[in-house]
Amino acid sequence: MISVVLIGAGNVASHLYNAFFNAETVVVKQWYNRTFEAVKSFQNDTEVIDDISELKEADVYILAVSDDAIVNVSKSFPFDNRFVVHTSGSVGLHDLDKRQKRGVFYPLQSFSKDATMDFVNVPICIETEDKSNLQLLKDLAEAIGSKHYKISTEQRQTLHLSAVFVNNFTNQLYRIAHEISDAKSINFDILKPLILETAKKVQDMSPFKAQTGPAKRNDKKTLKRHLKLIEKEEHRDIYELLTKSIQKTHGTSKSSVTKNHFRIKNKS
Amino acid sequence: MISVVLIGAGNVASHLYNAFFNAETVVVKQWYNRTFEAVKSFQNDTEVIDDISELKEADVYILAVSDDAIVNVSKSFPFDNRFVVHTSGSVGLHDLDKRQKRGVFYPLQSFSKDATMDFVNVPICIETEDKSNLQLLKDLAEAIGSKHYKISTEQRQTLHLSAVFVNNFTNQLYRIAHEISDAKSINFDILKPLILETAKKVQDMSPFKAQTGPAKRNDKKTLKRHLKLIEKEEHRDIYELLTKSIQKTHGTSKSSVTKNHFRIKNKS
Repeated sequence: MISVVLIGAGNVASHLYNAFFNAETVVVKQWYNRTFEAVKSFQNDTEVIDDISELKEADVYILAVSDDAIVNVSKSFPFDNRFVVHTSGSVGLHDLDKRQKRGVFYPLQSFSKDATMDFVNVPICIETEDKSNLQLLKDLAEAIGSKHYKISTEQRQTLHLSAVFVNNFTNQLYRIAHEISDAKSINFDILKPLILETAKKVQDMSPFKAQTGPAKRNDKKTLKRHLKLIEKEEHRDIYELLTKSIQKTHGTSKSSVTKNHFRIKNKS
Repeated sequence: MISVVLIGAGNVASHLYNAFFNAETVVVKQWYNRTFEAVKSFQNDTEVIDDISELKEADVYILAVSDDAIVNVSKSFPFDNRFVVHTSGSVGLHDLDKRQKRGVFYPLQSFSKDATMDFVNVPICIETEDKSNLQLLKDLAEAIGSKHYKISTEQRQTLHLSAVFVNNFTNQLYRIAHEISDAKSINFDILKPLILETAKKVQDMSPFKAQTGPAKRNDKKTLKRHLKLIEKEEHRDIYELLTKSIQKTHGTSKSSVTKNHFRIKNKS
């Protein structure tokens, strides 16, 4: 049995609490939050506290608080030399107070407040200062059904950056498509199956192989028509930049330049 | 029973053939392709031909050929005044030969060559010159399990543009994340559940509501760190442009400008 003390009551903390609560080999010994209100409703299931001096002994202390709070909360622990991990994608391992044995337990997923998340779909990136603590984090991940990956701080920060591309930026492309189709009274529902299929495709195929469309084909007629159709300059800039990016990745524009160059050379 | 003649043997044509073949209320009377080889293996199931003069009478002729071929193939039909539809997202209804009754049957989805596609996940955008032919296209869509939407040529071309954003451009963001994480020897598998969750989220929630992350929060520390982490200028340009776009959508940068302005005004 792994005993856990959970610190914080935000989105990630709440999802972790649920997962730990339902795991057979994990017990949440205490749940701390600086305001009692947020955790109060769980007091029948676990010990909830808002006084950090009351923290009891546990195998691991999981700091699921905002990035900015990690340094200070970890400094405020009333004990030394215990195993403390944070759950952030961007904060370094060494930002945790050095009095403790330090680690990271970063669930790479986008959590919604309301919907419950099956942790089978949540990869956990783990890192520990001391090798001997690695197994505990592996066991903890497995206990909630998650895959785990040993990841360095630099790799984790790069993953966090990559996540911005596949999550925030992708979502903004959905938003732009929503705006563009709304402007012509088109039901956004029509695009939803394509959105899902595009994400499904790269589960078994590299994004490189999965690419299609006018940019990759360098279909100038369609590219021109699309640019004419776009009404907002801001959307046009994004269309042009991502088209250029696709063509660079697939050597489309380069190869047409090369062809022209070859033709000119032959003429002379 | 709806009788169909299918023209073309590319990706869309093949998927439509399978769907029609399995539909109880549709019969594929003939399958034409200019080269016999591509359709030969289906000759036990339907009549396959490579001579356009042999086209028989049917309720609808479905032109699933490349955009550039639509005009010429539709001109080459050895009959007048029959119901002919194309399947393209970008070609106008009036690009079909005016001797025929014209329509469009555009499946908005990304078809893979190998994987079979359940047409429940393929919305069909339909358009007809003559109102009286609309019901036939609705019935045809329903016969293969698809939802159908009545869409004008302008709307369809806008949908095609929107599809580039949610499919090609989104896929390029996946590709960039793949490049960025590969450069640090990170397993791309770690990002796949997030990719899927991001697409799932907007099935029930608007992309506007689904947005999260450092750009929306205007978390300058993280934005700065990310820009420093990015090694390729091309990726940095995309990061900056999409961050700006998110902040414009959510009024993040605007509101901080307004706040400063307010403060200055109060001082003076």
